[in-house]
Amino acid sequence: MPEFSAADHAFMARALQLAARGRYTAHPNPTVGCVLVHGDAVVGEGWHQLAGEAHAEINALAVAGENSRGARAYVTLEPCAHHGKTPPCTTALIDAGIAEVIVALEDPNPRVNGRGLQQLADAGVRVRSGLLQDAVARQLEGFVSRIVRGRPFVRLKLAASLDGCIAMKNGESQWITGTDARADVQRLRAGSGAIMTGIGTVLADDPSLTVRDASIDMRGRQPLRVVLDSRLRMPLSAEMLALPGTTLVYCHDDAKRNLLVDAGAEVTRVAGDGDAVDLAAVFDDLASRDINAVLVEAGPALAGSLVEQDLVDELVIYQAPQIMGSETMRLFRTPTWTSLADRRNLQIMDMRRVGDDMRITARWQDKD
Amino acid sequence: MPEFSAADHAFMARALQLAARGRYTAHPNPTVGCVLVHGDAVVGEGWHQLAGEAHAEINALAVAGENSRGARAYVTLEPCAHHGKTPPCTTALIDAGIAEVIVALEDPNPRVNGRGLQQLADAGVRVRSGLLQDAVARQLEGFVSRIVRGRPFVRLKLAASLDGCIAMKNGESQWITGTDARADVQRLRAGSGAIMTGIGTVLADDPSLTVRDASIDMRGRQPLRVVLDSRLRMPLSAEMLALPGTTLVYCHDDAKRNLLVDAGAEVTRVAGDGDAVDLAAVFDDLASRDINAVLVEAGPALAGSLVEQDLVDELVIYQAPQIMGSETMRLFRTPTWTSLADRRNLQIMDMRRVGDDMRITARWQDKD
Repeated sequence: MPEFSAADHAFMARALQLAARGRYTAHPNPTVGCVLVHGDAVVGEGWHQLAGEAHAEINALAVAGENSRGARAYVTLEPCAHHGKTPPCTTALIDAGIAEVIVALEDPNPRVNGRGLQQLADAGVRVRSGLLQDAVARQLEGFVSRIVRGRPFVRLKLAASLDGCIAMKNGESQWITGTDARADVQRLRAGSGAIMTGIGTVLADDPSLTVRDASIDMRGRQPLRVVLDSRLRMPLSAEMLALPGTTLVYCHDDAKRNLLVDAGAEVTRVAGDGDAVDLAAVFDDLASRDINAVLVEAGPALAGSLVEQDLVDELVIYQAPQIMGSETMRLFRTPTWTSLADRRNLQIMDMRRVGDDMRITARWQDKD
Repeated sequence: MPEFSAADHAFMARALQLAARGRYTAHPNPTVGCVLVHGDAVVGEGWHQLAGEAHAEINALAVAGENSRGARAYVTLEPCAHHGKTPPCTTALIDAGIAEVIVALEDPNPRVNGRGLQQLADAGVRVRSGLLQDAVARQLEGFVSRIVRGRPFVRLKLAASLDGCIAMKNGESQWITGTDARADVQRLRAGSGAIMTGIGTVLADDPSLTVRDASIDMRGRQPLRVVLDSRLRMPLSAEMLALPGTTLVYCHDDAKRNLLVDAGAEVTRVAGDGDAVDLAAVFDDLASRDINAVLVEAGPALAGSLVEQDLVDELVIYQAPQIMGSETMRLFRTPTWTSLADRRNLQIMDMRRVGDDMRITARWQDKD
């Protein structure tokens, strides 16, 4: 890997900050930040705001104007070399007279990886890459997951009491976590391409699955709402069908599709068995729809199936400071885990207080 | 409350630190620290190390010698005014020529509360009290509980997976938490007057309930081991019966007491019903035995009964980063909690990582 100075690190860290500004709006594009520097002075900054609009590099060049000539460009993701909805960034950087391009992460798509850097180098621009690569890979993990694995990054959000309960056995339930935790979930939703739940949750709670927090600027976007509903039991009066944005219902028996389509849903048939649709097929399909990250807000049946089938990348568990006891329902239904050897080990990525509640973010220990 | 300077706070904080040194050994006495100060200079420090030996004030006076004359004494607990196993500290302070005594917490025993301060004042010693009173009340909460409420402070220690499971339904279990968490439990044990468990845990796990960590200096003491065993099902071969220290078995049917006494146990009969002894009666009895703080390490039956009967003062829950699923046993068996209204609200006092695990310390929200 090339050598990087302390100043290089600081400018790239700034580019990451800028990239993060697009986290609610760039979807399905990756969030990217760019800092243009002359000597020690920042002459331009930009980030990718909205799919179809200018990339980070173009926005930074526009700010820098004539100061771009001879400048260094710090970009979190390798500049594109192809005509998409916008012209290639490599051409723009070359035309602006940029002297050097420093990149954090090369394009994860193996078909285009390195081509942007090559075009720049061929034009006499100095290139270095790999600076803060891991941080950017984490920032773009949804995008990377879709491109590299062909399926979205799957984040399972759960809320339970401190003793792992979600409702009483008789079904009696209400908000377990407090307002701060629920506001936190709004941000998780806003950063996701899709929000998924099961038909059981729809029938029990009739959730809206929208981003309602007015302090989050989505530029009008709502995440795709996804309901797993093998036999299309979804009520035509379901709240989410009347809300802005798209509701996509996956089934394997689509006999009732017309009524639901008339009510505003999009219905897609995938493989399935009994009361379950093929979850891997659903995620494949979501990737083909350019969904980078899915937030699953599910009851014990779907949550259990997802962990049994090893389809979860990250768990976000909100724990309310309550003891609910034994006459309750629990987080996961995992009928196939009958021995201690079946349990799955996690690695705690983060734990913190969110209002009166706790939030624990964890990933599997043995997974890459 | 009298006024206290920043220096006063610093010296009393030091006295608290000194007091904490006795946390594993002073039992059943309160841990007390004392700092003697001349002008701005500390001339003596002491703490109470072992019941029957010198109190904190006496140890500090011995260090200060002639420098005690005209000094200020910062003491975490009101000096005793009565002859116990040692002569009264008030007399020693007066005889040494101490000019002023600053106290954090007045004696919680209403029969002697204020008498030490009065004796000092009567002898012309200036007295102030209330400095860092809350911190000392917390440090001495076991002692205060026994004196004021007539029962020990009850700390319930639990270990579970992140989804609140303690073993498989078929009983299959093993250490859930890691070595750091288990070392942490050794410190909880060492700071307790007694360690309590139920007969179910004895039959399933045959625990030793001792402090084994050689880095903890107990001065030879082992906490009292307490087993709740309504019908004396305890095996005569139980590990703990052969270990240093005392094993106290509470029952309500003591037909088999002689065999167990011969095997080394102390057996006490209390009221009870069916498979349960009267838990409140047990705690009353433990207080009468000068037990300040009880650490309960229990399975779901005892843990559930304790929370149902509102007999727990603090929960310490170790959460291992694992998902164990639905075919499992849970933390609490609470058959009487059938409605959401029965759940109990907690306040999180502390949350932290302990090795790979998490430790959550919580108290009831609505309790004093």
